[in-house]
Amino acid sequence: MKLTQSNNLEYIFHPNSIAFAGVSRTGQALLENHLTSGFKGNMYPISRTLTEVLGLQCYTDIKEIPDQVDYVWATIPAQATPQFVQDCVTKGVKVVSFFTAGFSEKDEEGAKLEAEIVQIARRGGMRILGPNCMGIYCPSTGLTFAHGLPQQSGSVGFICQSGGNSIYGVRAAVARGAYFSKTISYGNACDINECELFEYLALDPETKIITAYIEGIKDRRRFFKLLREVTKVKPVIVLKGGHTAPGAATATAHTGAIPFTTKNWNAHMKRAGAIQVYSVDEMVDVVLPLIHMSPPQGRNACIIGLGGGASVISADHCVRAGLSVPPLPEKIIQKIGEFILNPAGKIFVNPIDPQFAPGGLTDITRTIADWDGIDMLFLRLPHNLTPFYRDPGRKALDMMISLAKESSKPTAIILDHVATPEATQVFLERQQLCGDAGVVSFPSVKRAANAMSKFIQYHQRRSESA
Amino acid sequence: MKLTQSNNLEYIFHPNSIAFAGVSRTGQALLENHLTSGFKGNMYPISRTLTEVLGLQCYTDIKEIPDQVDYVWATIPAQATPQFVQDCVTKGVKVVSFFTAGFSEKDEEGAKLEAEIVQIARRGGMRILGPNCMGIYCPSTGLTFAHGLPQQSGSVGFICQSGGNSIYGVRAAVARGAYFSKTISYGNACDINECELFEYLALDPETKIITAYIEGIKDRRRFFKLLREVTKVKPVIVLKGGHTAPGAATATAHTGAIPFTTKNWNAHMKRAGAIQVYSVDEMVDVVLPLIHMSPPQGRNACIIGLGGGASVISADHCVRAGLSVPPLPEKIIQKIGEFILNPAGKIFVNPIDPQFAPGGLTDITRTIADWDGIDMLFLRLPHNLTPFYRDPGRKALDMMISLAKESSKPTAIILDHVATPEATQVFLERQQLCGDAGVVSFPSVKRAANAMSKFIQYHQRRSESA
Repeated sequence: MKLTQSNNLEYIFHPNSIAFAGVSRTGQALLENHLTSGFKGNMYPISRTLTEVLGLQCYTDIKEIPDQVDYVWATIPAQATPQFVQDCVTKGVKVVSFFTAGFSEKDEEGAKLEAEIVQIARRGGMRILGPNCMGIYCPSTGLTFAHGLPQQSGSVGFICQSGGNSIYGVRAAVARGAYFSKTISYGNACDINECELFEYLALDPETKIITAYIEGIKDRRRFFKLLREVTKVKPVIVLKGGHTAPGAATATAHTGAIPFTTKNWNAHMKRAGAIQVYSVDEMVDVVLPLIHMSPPQGRNACIIGLGGGASVISADHCVRAGLSVPPLPEKIIQKIGEFILNPAGKIFVNPIDPQFAPGGLTDITRTIADWDGIDMLFLRLPHNLTPFYRDPGRKALDMMISLAKESSKPTAIILDHVATPEATQVFLERQQLCGDAGVVSFPSVKRAANAMSKFIQYHQRRSESA
Repeated sequence: MKLTQSNNLEYIFHPNSIAFAGVSRTGQALLENHLTSGFKGNMYPISRTLTEVLGLQCYTDIKEIPDQVDYVWATIPAQATPQFVQDCVTKGVKVVSFFTAGFSEKDEEGAKLEAEIVQIARRGGMRILGPNCMGIYCPSTGLTFAHGLPQQSGSVGFICQSGGNSIYGVRAAVARGAYFSKTISYGNACDINECELFEYLALDPETKIITAYIEGIKDRRRFFKLLREVTKVKPVIVLKGGHTAPGAATATAHTGAIPFTTKNWNAHMKRAGAIQVYSVDEMVDVVLPLIHMSPPQGRNACIIGLGGGASVISADHCVRAGLSVPPLPEKIIQKIGEFILNPAGKIFVNPIDPQFAPGGLTDITRTIADWDGIDMLFLRLPHNLTPFYRDPGRKALDMMISLAKESSKPTAIILDHVATPEATQVFLERQQLCGDAGVVSFPSVKRAANAMSKFIQYHQRRSESA
């Protein structure tokens, strides 16, 4: 099987004009999002009750719009969809994205309705996204499914069968400096489905990394075959919803997904070399090194941080996640000891706890990075103490960002924090600073160790299969 | 072995007067903390360079203080400690808490110094806490080791061998409404050690739950014997630092701890019926149900929340943590369906996703709680969407708090949030509201499921051994 783009989806991301059906209700927020999203084309709200919304004239019917309409965001009642799809076909619309729910995920009647709108669309040469989905976020063209998402494009393509998870994932990633080429929330996948979207992203030059939240697969044979091809060209991260029986039952009720056995699924993922994750946060954790880091040459980590107890637990977390935390040789310990004026209360094993001696941080980190027994570095800047060391902490962060950027070894910054308002505020600011600098940050050593372990495993499997 | 209080430590938590040695440096922050901590007694700063600090007259020497001194916070250089301990003995001080490091955790010379100060103190009938520790936080008397900790007392006693972890733990717990009877950061444990502290907390009427972060044990035989007695009277949570070889090596460098094999340790914990956790956050997660909840009668959980994909993943997390998520019987599904006007896009399996229909939330929750197939409820209020549903979300939270308080089944609120500044702010406010109401909240279903699973296991083992 070769990747082809027989059904090229490129045009659905580049509409010249959009209509919004259902603006008297939920649809109004979608329209409002597009007023500030950078969308350059014309926008037409459709409403039977309103004459104007957010300063734009409303049309009672899509056929009345005096212009070509490429893309439609529809939040109309399910019962009204067959006629609406027919009207869109008549109008020459290219794609309709249905937020509307109440189709195959609901009951047999809904499944019939879904089949009906697909049939009308296919006959008319029009595509449907969803139903029961959030639609598209494409920062380069200004399509957006949520409020306040950045106009900045990035290298991550995200296919997501859940609307909530798509918004969560984008927000969580953006807060840490990972940006998106395209995010597609595709719901019930009645027409445009995961296979087409995977294939599209695999060939999309804007997309370097593909992540997916999947509940069900329409055409399993094609999907798994395709996945093996996609992973040859781009890293793929998969979060499967419904690994367990109750999860799968919920997935069926959510998007009409047909359950899998976990064993079967895991075997396919392993064979394809896809990275499996188990939460949206973990997905973002793994995305970050894929964007910003070269793969570590091995599993030996060094942790440089603040706090004795936290250092002990950090080492435990690394080992549990499958990393090694090798003791430093005597000559390295001696050398880094020279950079610390008063060694009392400091720890020189691995982890290193130089306490707050930011003066020595650069020299210590460089010395350790130069040792060939270490493959990656974690620089820990905790936000647990009083008064959160605002100034020296910021100075240390700037130093860590410089070190992470210059280092020959993959280096991540760990922004541990306790969830109090003050510490969290400082944490979020610093997470943003790391993101802006293109430096990988994690909120804890535990999450860092897990993500780096999966990142390394991905590259190991790739080099083994190459 | 019976719990006795031969070395009653009660007096160390109730000093009438405190001195602070080392206020020209680190010690000044400790003094400052006590100006607002509610401490009622006299405070005496000691400094050779300052005549006054924070409005208080300084004494050049402890012996010059014209009053009895019960408790001393010392942050002086290690070399000066033998003379200082001798002076404290002469002055009739009851206990000195040494923040000072550079003792047995450092090298042989430090170990000798530590042995020397212990000898002087014991000869003089004085106790030493630490060295290399933060000391005591006792809200009822105003002793405090960190800035801005609450004066409100609670039922949790916390023994912690790490200063950083003690502050982190208290802040993390307080933010979620768990308060402390006493927290003791005890560092190298040269004199007052984990056995004495465990025994004290076991017999302390203020303390209902004991949590501990431990790196090493001074007298293993006595400790494990004692632990088996303590767990008979109060639940004990243990976070062991140094389960892995690099973690253990770091613990040795941190507090001079002698390594354990994990197998041996785990066997002792299991035999004693102690709850093992692996991070400070997890410790707080388990503390909360121990404070506020009766044990669920079984492992059947129902999740009621917002979001299809999040519901699917929530079910997966519960099952992975060892809980069951049973399907609801048809009659219950029918009944809760009556409370929802428009069922499209909603999920009625288990998890239930009623979307934002707060009107029906109370009826739905009560209906499910009344079914005997469910042992506990998770009410999910996510903070991921736009515009974070500030007003309806708050209304839903108030409803959830009422439901959690009235419910016959243990009910926790899950405040999922994505780490953006806006969502985090709302999350923290709502976490505090839950805490203030005495309702258990968790930041994710994953953490809730893990904590509840350990909480249930603890009670199962107790009833089996009874």
